[in-house]
Amino acid sequence: MVKAVVNSPAPLKVGIAGLGVVGAGVVRLLDQHAGTLAARAGRPIKVVAVSARDRRKKRDMPKGSWRWYGDAADLAGDPDVDVVVELIGGADGKARALVEAALRAGKGVVTANKAMLAVHGAKIAALAEAHDAPLAFEAAVAGGIPIVKALREGLIGNRIDQITGILNGTCNYILTEMRNTGRDFGEVLKEAQQLGYAEADPSFDIDGVDAAHKLAVLTSLAFNTRVDFRAVHVEGIRHVSAVDIAFAREFGYRIKLLAIARRTPRGIEQRVHPCMVPADTPIAHVDGVFNAVSAVGDYVGRVMFEGRGAGSNPTASAVVADLADLAAGRRAPAFGVPAVKLQPLKAAAMADYIGRYYIRLIVRDQPGVLADVSAVLRDHKISIESLVQRGRSEAENQPVAVVFITHEAREADMARALKRIAKLRPVLQPPAPIRIETP
Amino acid sequence: MVKAVVNSPAPLKVGIAGLGVVGAGVVRLLDQHAGTLAARAGRPIKVVAVSARDRRKKRDMPKGSWRWYGDAADLAGDPDVDVVVELIGGADGKARALVEAALRAGKGVVTANKAMLAVHGAKIAALAEAHDAPLAFEAAVAGGIPIVKALREGLIGNRIDQITGILNGTCNYILTEMRNTGRDFGEVLKEAQQLGYAEADPSFDIDGVDAAHKLAVLTSLAFNTRVDFRAVHVEGIRHVSAVDIAFAREFGYRIKLLAIARRTPRGIEQRVHPCMVPADTPIAHVDGVFNAVSAVGDYVGRVMFEGRGAGSNPTASAVVADLADLAAGRRAPAFGVPAVKLQPLKAAAMADYIGRYYIRLIVRDQPGVLADVSAVLRDHKISIESLVQRGRSEAENQPVAVVFITHEAREADMARALKRIAKLRPVLQPPAPIRIETP
Repeated sequence: MVKAVVNSPAPLKVGIAGLGVVGAGVVRLLDQHAGTLAARAGRPIKVVAVSARDRRKKRDMPKGSWRWYGDAADLAGDPDVDVVVELIGGADGKARALVEAALRAGKGVVTANKAMLAVHGAKIAALAEAHDAPLAFEAAVAGGIPIVKALREGLIGNRIDQITGILNGTCNYILTEMRNTGRDFGEVLKEAQQLGYAEADPSFDIDGVDAAHKLAVLTSLAFNTRVDFRAVHVEGIRHVSAVDIAFAREFGYRIKLLAIARRTPRGIEQRVHPCMVPADTPIAHVDGVFNAVSAVGDYVGRVMFEGRGAGSNPTASAVVADLADLAAGRRAPAFGVPAVKLQPLKAAAMADYIGRYYIRLIVRDQPGVLADVSAVLRDHKISIESLVQRGRSEAENQPVAVVFITHEAREADMARALKRIAKLRPVLQPPAPIRIETP
Repeated sequence: MVKAVVNSPAPLKVGIAGLGVVGAGVVRLLDQHAGTLAARAGRPIKVVAVSARDRRKKRDMPKGSWRWYGDAADLAGDPDVDVVVELIGGADGKARALVEAALRAGKGVVTANKAMLAVHGAKIAALAEAHDAPLAFEAAVAGGIPIVKALREGLIGNRIDQITGILNGTCNYILTEMRNTGRDFGEVLKEAQQLGYAEADPSFDIDGVDAAHKLAVLTSLAFNTRVDFRAVHVEGIRHVSAVDIAFAREFGYRIKLLAIARRTPRGIEQRVHPCMVPADTPIAHVDGVFNAVSAVGDYVGRVMFEGRGAGSNPTASAVVADLADLAAGRRAPAFGVPAVKLQPLKAAAMADYIGRYYIRLIVRDQPGVLADVSAVLRDHKISIESLVQRGRSEAENQPVAVVFITHEAREADMARALKRIAKLRPVLQPPAPIRIETP
């Protein structure tokens, strides 16, 4: 629609470190939309150098006359690179060394590296400012959804009170498939691995670590606090079973791995864990590999953003948005305010969390078991809203599923109660609690 | 969380024209979050002048020591105003005069005026550029949702292929209430007027004009074309009846007033009309006064944004986001590319639209009527996917509702067929077609 610019101003010269699917996507996008981008950003964006371990590997991208470096660190030393795009990954090692060297050289850095930002974000932002070098990371959270820009600029007028996200596509895909097919976790995970939606070692995703990295970054943006990954309470989805999915449906809920950051009188809560969310809330309908982030601001109310959270093309879209900002001279403090103004995060203790719980037990079907469990809950001041036993076993002593839905209870009380319940003789598996959230 | 800046740099000096609920909201927000905003934007944002007809009117905002002007035009001449916020409204008249005068004086303009942008947008953007004055209008579309920034910056790397929006909260509220209560259009409209969700003269909203204004602006941003409001095909929701809502539910659809801009081989389609959307699509769940915009980009895929589309606080959030961009020195071409590069919009004729249709007829219950209608459709090469007659009247000749769902058909054929169907003797009301969309 827009023709290439004639006599265009000096291009923004880009060096890309890491030519996996995202890096190749960035090269492809910059090539395919070169003319439009130059018109939109005011100047061309040009890849001039790349770095990847294997130069001969087949890649889904056009060929270019860029300089090749075997060592990514050399990009930081290339005087003819304005911006380094870091797509190596990992909290430390080569990625961090490159980013710090580039910033020290006054180069801009665009990165998709949530692990690095979650662990070293505040320090890296301070380094960027000390050298007046822009630092941008739209691609680090929620793939193609422009949520970093939305929080940092679009919602700038708000005190943000809560962020709720579906930030890991692998988990959301698995939970959606479990719901759609009735199959159990292990089976669906195996299939997801075959389809390439889950890694061979899936723990990073399914144990909630990846979502927690992203949440820590969003928290900093939303509350202008120093990134504090260690303060995130993290639980994954391994213990979610087909039985839970079936109960959720029966009660009008869907199970989602939510990442939540919330302002409370006790400080800021950051937590990643499976949740029961009412089936009629918007976030309950975010299915498959899609991500979503909902933010509640004091002026804007609730806004929700939904889109693809990963993949070559959506992530490339986010990387290029950052590059275009740099090309156009649009700058913003990395985490919303200058690094020196980021406050230490006062973390609310998870033990003080208050909410409703779904507790599913597998128990031997025998008289008295429900009374025993109820008594433990009562002893810990946890009141029961409803109790469901699904079917009865053919004979006594067979395992059956029992679900308790509680009224609001304190996490510390619940933890103690569950420890005692786990020790009751007829309780056959450790109790699997899922918090009930209405985001 | 963030303390006020000591020794802060020079403030951005703001003049506000129009102190209705939005203007008061902007004053309130800038006052309440002054410290945080200064930290985030890098300098304070300060209201120094205002203009409103009635100075003594009670307003929900703090008092300030600003200069008062009876005539908004004087804001453009105040040398101590950096940015004029135009909240007067209307495509021409005082609003346009003020905006043009302010831009000519080199001042920034922030406006929520979709009517003005829809009619004069391209010209005003050119004027702004000629005077190197920033022009921003996040608040003009979808209230608090930062969709203008998302399209212009966040999705800058994409060729956008389609925009689908729920852009009018009044219509969405009415349609949602009709679905929730089973009541008819007129009754729900009356209630909406009592609740303040609809104007005394509601035609601007319910006839789709407001949504069309906003769509015209989004189209320009998405496709980098000159705003072309006259090319928008507009239908409102007056003819949607309780019967249609009931049929929609039965078929697994929800009725929404959608605003759609789409790239087709024939040009760009811009249309606002009621749609049947499958109940399991995300946009079907955007209810009440909420707005939503979904965009499909070639790299990002589909992204959706949802939030409050109107009201004092959400709109103030959007106005302040623009002010913060200006304070921070972040600039972007108003419609995504410099005005001179905006292409004339090549409009796809609505007559060539192809899609599936829901056609609800009220007919006298007598033998042969379905055959007659079917024959007309066949004559115009429209094939029927399904046909439902709900219940039968007690006696022959009583009115009953009949619904035809068609396969894909051409709009021009459909229009001709409907004209003939309307003339059939047993057809008691003009046929009410609703297009079926799967956005």
